[in-house]
Amino acid sequence: MARVGLIMGSDSDWPQVKKAADVLDGFGVEWEAVVASAHRSPERVTRWVREAPQRGVQVIIAAAGLAAHLPGVVAAQTTLPVIGLPIEAGALRGVDALYSIVQMPPGVPVATVGINAGRNAGLLAVQMLALADQELRARLAHYKEEVAQESAAADRRLQEMLKAETGE
Amino acid sequence: MARVGLIMGSDSDWPQVKKAADVLDGFGVEWEAVVASAHRSPERVTRWVREAPQRGVQVIIAAAGLAAHLPGVVAAQTTLPVIGLPIEAGALRGVDALYSIVQMPPGVPVATVGINAGRNAGLLAVQMLALADQELRARLAHYKEEVAQESAAADRRLQEMLKAETGE
Amino acid sequence: MARVGLIMGSDSDWPQVKKAADVLDGFGVEWEAVVASAHRSPERVTRWVREAPQRGVQVIIAAAGLAAHLPGVVAAQTTLPVIGLPIEAGALRGVDALYSIVQMPPGVPVATVGINAGRNAGLLAVQMLALADQELRARLAHYKEEVAQESAAADRRLQEMLKAETGE
Amino acid sequence: MARVGLIMGSDSDWPQVKKAADVLDGFGVEWEAVVASAHRSPERVTRWVREAPQRGVQVIIAAAGLAAHLPGVVAAQTTLPVIGLPIEAGALRGVDALYSIVQMPPGVPVATVGINAGRNAGLLAVQMLALADQELRARLAHYKEEVAQESAAADRRLQEMLKAETGE
Amino acid sequence: MARVGLIMGSDSDWPQVKKAADVLDGFGVEWEAVVASAHRSPERVTRWVREAPQRGVQVIIAAAGLAAHLPGVVAAQTTLPVIGLPIEAGALRGVDALYSIVQMPPGVPVATVGINAGRNAGLLAVQMLALADQELRARLAHYKEEVAQESAAADRRLQEMLKAETGE
Amino acid sequence: MARVGLIMGSDSDWPQVKKAADVLDGFGVEWEAVVASAHRSPERVTRWVREAPQRGVQVIIAAAGLAAHLPGVVAAQTTLPVIGLPIEAGALRGVDALYSIVQMPPGVPVATVGINAGRNAGLLAVQMLALADQELRARLAHYKEEVAQESAAADRRLQEMLKAETGE
Amino acid sequence: MARVGLIMGSDSDWPQVKKAADVLDGFGVEWEAVVASAHRSPERVTRWVREAPQRGVQVIIAAAGLAAHLPGVVAAQTTLPVIGLPIEAGALRGVDALYSIVQMPPGVPVATVGINAGRNAGLLAVQMLALADQELRARLAHYKEEVAQESAAADRRLQEMLKAETGE
Amino acid sequence: MARVGLIMGSDSDWPQVKKAADVLDGFGVEWEAVVASAHRSPERVTRWVREAPQRGVQVIIAAAGLAAHLPGVVAAQTTLPVIGLPIEAGALRGVDALYSIVQMPPGVPVATVGINAGRNAGLLAVQMLALADQELRARLAHYKEEVAQESAAADRRLQEMLKAETGE
Repeated sequence: MARVGLIMGSDSDWPQVKKAADVLDGFGVEWEAVVASAHRSPERVTRWVREAPQRGVQVIIAAAGLAAHLPGVVAAQTTLPVIGLPIEAGALRGVDALYSIVQMPPGVPVATVGINAGRNAGLLAVQMLALADQELRARLAHYKEEVAQESAAADRRLQEMLKAETGE
Repeated sequence: MARVGLIMGSDSDWPQVKKAADVLDGFGVEWEAVVASAHRSPERVTRWVREAPQRGVQVIIAAAGLAAHLPGVVAAQTTLPVIGLPIEAGALRGVDALYSIVQMPPGVPVATVGINAGRNAGLLAVQMLALADQELRARLAHYKEEVAQESAAADRRLQEMLKAETGE
Repeated sequence: MARVGLIMGSDSDWPQVKKAADVLDGFGVEWEAVVASAHRSPERVTRWVREAPQRGVQVIIAAAGLAAHLPGVVAAQTTLPVIGLPIEAGALRGVDALYSIVQMPPGVPVATVGINAGRNAGLLAVQMLALADQELRARLAHYKEEVAQESAAADRRLQEMLKAETGE
Repeated sequence: MARVGLIMGSDSDWPQVKKAADVLDGFGVEWEAVVASAHRSPERVTRWVREAPQRGVQVIIAAAGLAAHLPGVVAAQTTLPVIGLPIEAGALRGVDALYSIVQMPPGVPVATVGINAGRNAGLLAVQMLALADQELRARLAHYKEEVAQESAAADRRLQEMLKAETGE
Repeated sequence: MARVGLIMGSDSDWPQVKKAADVLDGFGVEWEAVVASAHRSPERVTRWVREAPQRGVQVIIAAAGLAAHLPGVVAAQTTLPVIGLPIEAGALRGVDALYSIVQMPPGVPVATVGINAGRNAGLLAVQMLALADQELRARLAHYKEEVAQESAAADRRLQEMLKAETGE
Repeated sequence: MARVGLIMGSDSDWPQVKKAADVLDGFGVEWEAVVASAHRSPERVTRWVREAPQRGVQVIIAAAGLAAHLPGVVAAQTTLPVIGLPIEAGALRGVDALYSIVQMPPGVPVATVGINAGRNAGLLAVQMLALADQELRARLAHYKEEVAQESAAADRRLQEMLKAETGE
Repeated sequence: MARVGLIMGSDSDWPQVKKAADVLDGFGVEWEAVVASAHRSPERVTRWVREAPQRGVQVIIAAAGLAAHLPGVVAAQTTLPVIGLPIEAGALRGVDALYSIVQMPPGVPVATVGINAGRNAGLLAVQMLALADQELRARLAHYKEEVAQESAAADRRLQEMLKAETGE
Repeated sequence: MARVGLIMGSDSDWPQVKKAADVLDGFGVEWEAVVASAHRSPERVTRWVREAPQRGVQVIIAAAGLAAHLPGVVAAQTTLPVIGLPIEAGALRGVDALYSIVQMPPGVPVATVGINAGRNAGLLAVQMLALADQELRARLAHYKEEVAQESAAADRRLQEMLKAETGE
């Protein structure tokens, strides 16, 4: 049973969406992924959104570039929380997608993350699921420590590099 | 029988959409208008778009502000030409709506006019209908002259004002 | 016991944050609110974020304008989901706050809503809580119908206005 | 007899305009193409626009980058619908062209599509012609299905890729 | 005989253009003004541009807002220097006009001044005329001193205000 | 003896610069103020900058709007630290001034604060002076507490307002 | 004797400025070029600007990127017309330079051309000089025809390419 | 004993920060550098900022990209002057970082330099330290001459290149 549904407007969005899937894998959270377009295949979007809860989906991550209507169109058809992931594409480099995803009208929110910020989309989904899952809450606390370790490791790399330079 | 369908996301968009309706009235083109939201009432949007051709609608004008998905969502469900009218609203003053309406993905165009440019939306609808309507074509030629007259009248106003000032 | 914590950088943000509080009230979700600044009173922010879970807080809404670091600073200190609400303020009218809130680095997400979109911030919090609260899920379904009714009512207002004009 | 006229400010615009020509070819719609500049060869623009209807042109697609006055200058001299195609060029990457094409003054509309969105320009021309051409209407309905198939095929590619990864 | 021609797209642009006219008056430079639109009355623009040199016009100031094609369209039809004056109008507040006026293609320059900077447009015209007019050169040197005096006077106002405050 | 020199391009900038002066007054730091323009009175700018150190000036705050060259022009003529204060003015609302002040070329820095952020300009000057002034360092620590108190007071106002509402 | 002075902030600007020099060469207009920085070598800028008229300079072209104060600083010290050429450089890609050059305060104009538009800068200088030089006026008329020929040649290239494709 | 502390959000920021370190080395000013993130390792940031003065740090340079909260978070915890260095990163190319760093709320300034302007960050730190260090003041005067020499050398390179071309 997938707990998170990943939907994207084009398969060219997958490299960004995969970053979310990788986070979910790391937390042991099942997911499913689908390519469906708010403009090119709206019926498939509707069907997928309607049936997702029956397959266990509790949180949806929707990724799109350019006009990027997909997250909003999904949010219009569900009461599950929808995370919007703007993709950098075309001449406007994702500013169009960001504005289009985040500026939703009152009554239909989309939880927007940064442009190409797939990892944060996945992590936000885990935080939501953790509200009802004590084990995930524990893993999140552990993950936060790991993130701090990443930063500390980056500092060690810098210190060693500086020391090596001075040693010359 | 309405030949142009006007759809807007909120009744607060009406003052801008009315400018399109006034143009249509001036050309003797019947229209119908509806408030329906791509996010708040997507089923009503779908129903309206599907049934519009049966009521005679050949061209659709869709107006929206903020995330402004309505024109794209309408275009996804019809093969009629859809004119998108971005509305100035909120902190981004319509740049969000403009990007969201014009940057449609390949395969689903929206004919976008300027921010709050309701009059041009109406006129563009008439130009499209005129492709199959000789009388409208004649009226368009006449309208173009009127527009030129407007400009000439503005010039006369300026010249009179300058003359009056000089005369003092 | 408050289930949602509302934190804002300045009490001048309250009119926007109140829109979130009103939604929460409508769903019968308890909340608490605090003014604390990531820059002017960082210790109070830290203390509030650390102690919030003990008071029952499961979701945090953080509002800020200008550099708008508060949502990110809160997210850095908790594993609870944090909703970021950019406030329109100053010469850049909230674009600064939007970018600053949404463009978080990998590992520390903030669920961003539109500029001044307090109602959506509140609704997103309810959607998150509803993942573990069947009653809230039912109310959300009902709310979605209400939102659709709002849109339908706006359409009726338009139709009546148009009819009245025609009747003249 | 060409039914659609393609005009562009520079022959470096052709790769984008060609996307429109390819769509027209796919629909069996005859077209003609010309390079003429609103600033460098205004007389040739004027002559081409004036004579185009006599050659059968019913819809014009005008492409330009930078200041991008061509679509507006064409629209000023015809009552045919003019589709404006902004080209990404120079340091502003097409934002200049987009604003310059879409923000036309009241009375002279240009139907603007996205930056570099040649395919949508072609498709919009077909939608306009279809208002008076039942066969094109039928083909458009068919095309819409093909567009949906493209999206479904992209989904199948993703599913197979995911299955292959899992199978390892 | 007018030496500077002032052309504007709309008579609503006059308050900004008047600032240029006032500068010209101050230098004793004759001018003429006309309202003509690149889109609404292109023939009148063409006629005015073609005949202007015969009336003595040596420099043209062209003002426009929104898509703001007028300066470029004028420049396309003359070898006289054309000064472009972007007008703040509509939702984009003149950024559209600025980009549209300044980003001209190679071969057809427009000398662009700031948004609503009518005074600078007038002054630039005088600087150009002064290349062949020794008296204007002398007046420009004098004007530069006046401008410096304006700044010195502003400083005196500040010093007096500060002194008054301290005196309290 | 003034320790901070305040220079502004126009006396209309004074209301923003005064916020810096008020901070300096609060810290007991002497200042002097002058209106001089990088473009209208460059010699007066040069003279002021050259002579300022002899009057005791150690830090300069330079404020300007629009093209806003003043801070950079001042920095070009001194080795004292220069704080740049962008002023909101004209159609671009201070984005022009911000870019123009902050994007200095390598070798000539300007310490830029936010648009209209006069208070921060003053405070930054105090922080610089405090590097060599133990008493100012002590006052800064105290000021930081006051700033935290401001934030705490804002919170108390909110709590009382909420309590009052609940009490009804 | 140079009639046009080319000044640039950095020798890395030369490839863009050279486009202006090439135009001047084409018209047989003598020029001189100098690298001098408004921020790094302000005295050399001042000296060059002051002495330029004695060497015959009548028009100045000033190029700069980033904060791009050079054109304005030059304009502050001369009554000759100054053409500003914004250079694309750094993260903001020339928008900073464009705003900084064009948004000059009232009283000190800079005639701004497009980003990297060196050819137009040169051509504008020729147009100014032609006000007092009948031979240049004749050459400008001839140049305008050449520019039109360039556009016609581009059209021929397109037509041949299309014919070749059809012929296959 | 380090007099300047360099803190950066990621070790990928080092190439930009190194430009500041190189300037400090050139002036003989000791520095220390650390990687610590306002979001991933906030405790390490806090500890570093608190302890920095004890290690001799008088000025802090903080670099970050994207949401770029680090400089503001550092400034919130110290009364030392903090120089903010926005890093170009991600789809928004540093505009997000610039706005987030410079638009600090009243009471907590950050002295912002240009995007990727590491050299200016270092130089600004030296200017601040020079307020209490006569030797640094002398070196700054010398450095200013060197910067002028750089510009003069660039001019010589241009003159030689032009002479070589002419000589051919």
